[in-house]
Amino acid sequence: MQHIMPPPTKDLAWVMGPYQAPIARVEPGETFQVSTLDAFANRIDATDIDLSTVIQLPYVNPCTGPIYVEGAEPGDTLAVRIDDIKLTRDYAVSCIIPEFGGLCGTVYTRILNEPLDQRILLHPITDEGMIHDPNLNIPKIPIEPFYGTIGTSPTTEAISTLSPGFHGGNMDAADVCVGNTIYLPVAVEGARLFLGDGHVTQGDAEVCGVAPEVPTTGTLTVDLIKGRRLETPRIEDDEYIMSVGSARPMEDAARIAFYDLIGWLEADYGFERIAAYQLCSQVARVRVANMVDVLYSIVAKFPKRYLLEA
Amino acid sequence: MQHIMPPPTKDLAWVMGPYQAPIARVEPGETFQVSTLDAFANRIDATDIDLSTVIQLPYVNPCTGPIYVEGAEPGDTLAVRIDDIKLTRDYAVSCIIPEFGGLCGTVYTRILNEPLDQRILLHPITDEGMIHDPNLNIPKIPIEPFYGTIGTSPTTEAISTLSPGFHGGNMDAADVCVGNTIYLPVAVEGARLFLGDGHVTQGDAEVCGVAPEVPTTGTLTVDLIKGRRLETPRIEDDEYIMSVGSARPMEDAARIAFYDLIGWLEADYGFERIAAYQLCSQVARVRVANMVDVLYSIVAKFPKRYLLEA
Amino acid sequence: MQHIMPPPTKDLAWVMGPYQAPIARVEPGETFQVSTLDAFANRIDATDIDLSTVIQLPYVNPCTGPIYVEGAEPGDTLAVRIDDIKLTRDYAVSCIIPEFGGLCGTVYTRILNEPLDQRILLHPITDEGMIHDPNLNIPKIPIEPFYGTIGTSPTTEAISTLSPGFHGGNMDAADVCVGNTIYLPVAVEGARLFLGDGHVTQGDAEVCGVAPEVPTTGTLTVDLIKGRRLETPRIEDDEYIMSVGSARPMEDAARIAFYDLIGWLEADYGFERIAAYQLCSQVARVRVANMVDVLYSIVAKFPKRYLLEA
Amino acid sequence: MQHIMPPPTKDLAWVMGPYQAPIARVEPGETFQVSTLDAFANRIDATDIDLSTVIQLPYVNPCTGPIYVEGAEPGDTLAVRIDDIKLTRDYAVSCIIPEFGGLCGTVYTRILNEPLDQRILLHPITDEGMIHDPNLNIPKIPIEPFYGTIGTSPTTEAISTLSPGFHGGNMDAADVCVGNTIYLPVAVEGARLFLGDGHVTQGDAEVCGVAPEVPTTGTLTVDLIKGRRLETPRIEDDEYIMSVGSARPMEDAARIAFYDLIGWLEADYGFERIAAYQLCSQVARVRVANMVDVLYSIVAKFPKRYLLEA
Repeated sequence: MQHIMPPPTKDLAWVMGPYQAPIARVEPGETFQVSTLDAFANRIDATDIDLSTVIQLPYVNPCTGPIYVEGAEPGDTLAVRIDDIKLTRDYAVSCIIPEFGGLCGTVYTRILNEPLDQRILLHPITDEGMIHDPNLNIPKIPIEPFYGTIGTSPTTEAISTLSPGFHGGNMDAADVCVGNTIYLPVAVEGARLFLGDGHVTQGDAEVCGVAPEVPTTGTLTVDLIKGRRLETPRIEDDEYIMSVGSARPMEDAARIAFYDLIGWLEADYGFERIAAYQLCSQVARVRVANMVDVLYSIVAKFPKRYLLEA
Repeated sequence: MQHIMPPPTKDLAWVMGPYQAPIARVEPGETFQVSTLDAFANRIDATDIDLSTVIQLPYVNPCTGPIYVEGAEPGDTLAVRIDDIKLTRDYAVSCIIPEFGGLCGTVYTRILNEPLDQRILLHPITDEGMIHDPNLNIPKIPIEPFYGTIGTSPTTEAISTLSPGFHGGNMDAADVCVGNTIYLPVAVEGARLFLGDGHVTQGDAEVCGVAPEVPTTGTLTVDLIKGRRLETPRIEDDEYIMSVGSARPMEDAARIAFYDLIGWLEADYGFERIAAYQLCSQVARVRVANMVDVLYSIVAKFPKRYLLEA
Repeated sequence: MQHIMPPPTKDLAWVMGPYQAPIARVEPGETFQVSTLDAFANRIDATDIDLSTVIQLPYVNPCTGPIYVEGAEPGDTLAVRIDDIKLTRDYAVSCIIPEFGGLCGTVYTRILNEPLDQRILLHPITDEGMIHDPNLNIPKIPIEPFYGTIGTSPTTEAISTLSPGFHGGNMDAADVCVGNTIYLPVAVEGARLFLGDGHVTQGDAEVCGVAPEVPTTGTLTVDLIKGRRLETPRIEDDEYIMSVGSARPMEDAARIAFYDLIGWLEADYGFERIAAYQLCSQVARVRVANMVDVLYSIVAKFPKRYLLEA
Repeated sequence: MQHIMPPPTKDLAWVMGPYQAPIARVEPGETFQVSTLDAFANRIDATDIDLSTVIQLPYVNPCTGPIYVEGAEPGDTLAVRIDDIKLTRDYAVSCIIPEFGGLCGTVYTRILNEPLDQRILLHPITDEGMIHDPNLNIPKIPIEPFYGTIGTSPTTEAISTLSPGFHGGNMDAADVCVGNTIYLPVAVEGARLFLGDGHVTQGDAEVCGVAPEVPTTGTLTVDLIKGRRLETPRIEDDEYIMSVGSARPMEDAARIAFYDLIGWLEADYGFERIAAYQLCSQVARVRVANMVDVLYSIVAKFPKRYLLEA
């Protein structure tokens, strides 16, 4: 099985776009392994590091990629099944970044208040789960690994790996996990898949801006749906079909997600559009994936049990 | 057991405020019954009604109340435990209201596109569940009843029963259900509890703007937490402590909810504030309660299993 | 000429609604005088006052009213011409309120950063203008007085005088000034006019949340446009017709304002709707009235010189 | 004088980034001419064109560039003085694009309503001004040309020319006009200046999404401020210093603009930070530049007459 490693530091992907040379090539149907650095490029190994030396924008959240998918052409859909995610370090990193997060001033929501103080936590990982803080008497947190960031290249833009969008990217959606299939738009030849930002687990909304960040080795299987154009990422598991919207303000992210989900129910599952809208109002589920990134991400989910029976 | 009925039409509560005469009085610790009309004042019983004759703002979403709670004073907290909710009609009403909902132009998000067409659905309710549409071959939807609207009086304002806010109100949060306790701020003498807007169940976000609307008879037990000032509603069940934020844009609703939840973890559960912020980023859950009302509502939830052990 | 004084403190209007007794009555066509307290009820006369003793929500921004307009009925429009505004104190008050303003955390945009420190400025007013700070060598600021707050009663709600909305209210729009006519919806008998919140002048957006606040005596002439239903306030001066939208997020305020302005151009001035939309994109002007209040206010302006000639 | 022409169609700039080869090089202090196509690449010359054939994302709003500025290094500021803008066509183009604009559903604010119909207007330009519509009896509109789009390259991203941002871009700010100096951040060697999107004039907010679009030939003088790092674009004319913020929701754009303006007053003009905040609340002016693009743009302006005298 092919094992794709992160490139040397100077070649790490900090944007998703059509401009870098592919670091690997895969065939549709191929199962392969891929390793990722954590969101801080594995540079944090102590709690007393000055974060401003590690977090120098735009060099945050390095992805492994672009991975060229043979035969992928604009207008196709890339289906990425996540077969496995292994954590490759025995601790995760979390931190308070002074002008980043959901409950503080940021470069977008500018305020005159003093920034928060930085803080770094290292969370030991054992077979029984993740220890939030050895000094706090709380149960271990289960390991539920997923990729915070997965996406393909836009047509002409090179988008920061810190941003989610119609191309996928930094959605921080815990549904990008083992067993699930992620559908991504193909806008350029070869699709150019990027992924990274492994999370041990995550609270909905990722409210402080950082999850327990960890390097990983994953096993993926890619496939192509030829001639199927996607407008925004979709995800599927045994229980739900899901559409992801990323935008600001957050209601616009929810609108994109539901609009796409309703369109999916209409196009593939035989629902009339407004009927699907009304049914979603009764049975849909919503995940707030992030309220901290360049754009906020919302996952709208429709339970498969309410799909029309043939 | 006292049974509080909705007042005659001319006295229905269309606002939550300090100005109406109480329709009933209860004692702290008292268990009582209360009946509510549906959000359309039970006026829709056919699918060919002209909605514009039924929905004449501000006369939508009538609540039963104010219910005066003896001994409640400003600065107290009102705890409302929901013991039971019975549906008192064998069908629920849903509709598409032309300029209301999450995926259309509204009086707030004004657009020049033509409004959607109205549509009314009547959903038969049986012991096995709710039938979305007899013409569609999908499973019955389980009955999971809750109050879309529950709140107390602000100090000086009289707020439309269509709006959620710091006082509770039209949150459309499915956590306001049987078995759960809702904590509401007391801003005036007697607290003045209002409730209504029974829902058979609801999708997260209530995306089309309407749930399966139904009249109800509920059984509630109220209690007072003297001298405990709340800033926004809280909810508790066996699994979670929850704070509700209502605001626009939606991220501000999420900020209010998480800020309050973190303050709660700090004040009552021994967490240091920033530690709670970081832990929420790992284990919190979020419900998008509504993305359609005057303000959007978000429920931030902290799993009780991660509370510090004494 | 009738001179309407603010009522005693206990009767000051902190909400605009149908519940208080009128403090005065005027006839359509009548010119009268009205005096207003400043937004802090004239309680700040030194820079070392503890603001938390003065600003005790919801008792901020007292208005003079309700003024009952004889003959006003729901569905009419109230036209208020401002003939004069006299400042009745030789200094204005400005302050930094720790959790209020455009560039800080607030009760709506909740953050964990430490609040700003309070600060009070008293600005001497002379015939040549207002002195921002005697210690800073900058020119006097011209006196351009206007009412930050003017509105009528909603049908059933009692809305805080701190909030703007479809009824007018705390718009903080500098176009509510001498020589201009303000059009307000009539939702209840007698219209019930409220006004207050005199400003010596104001920067667009009122960014710190407070303008130079001052008590006033104004001269107004009211008139009725019978049977003309307004959806949101309008303003007219020699140069522009203007519509005011108040909402969050700010783009929704702008949408309301432009939607109404385009509807006005269509209904009264013979423009086809989409033609007006396109023309606004070429000649309209926009004022950001406030970015600090319960809702943000935007004034969309169409230059009269581009109205169709008859 | 060097005259920089738009490159052949296949090399037009649809993104601002570090990846394309420069099409020209200029020296600091150099005055040069530059020609630009209109936002539709000059492809619209009749009102009956099918817009969907012309507007094929992302190939809209082509810019002329990158122009390499000798000696520019990351951390410098590029000062671009606009000496002249000549319109190079005798008509301007405006249109209604079905899912684009301020008062309709868009790809970000997704709705289920039917899209607006397309509409194209061609506006004749004469020496006396622009004719909005020969069939409407309204005065000619004065020629007040400016660049809707001007910006430099980010460090690693390639941002669509349809988007504004910290790098400048598609701000649609009418202050980018003759006589004014635009300050832009330099993030990469050579700065890489891009510009285009000439507008004959524009209403604040560019509400329908399109201004009167026109090709131009401008005369510019560029200069470098070495070692001066900018966070967002700034503009200066005789009357104002101005900061531009671009974000969604619109209040965040305003926050960025005011935060930067206050920082500028503090760093260069001797104001204490909170004093500047309070003074802005009294004398600042705000332009809503656009409410239609990928991000909304706000210009916060401080009148030079209130700068501290030395």
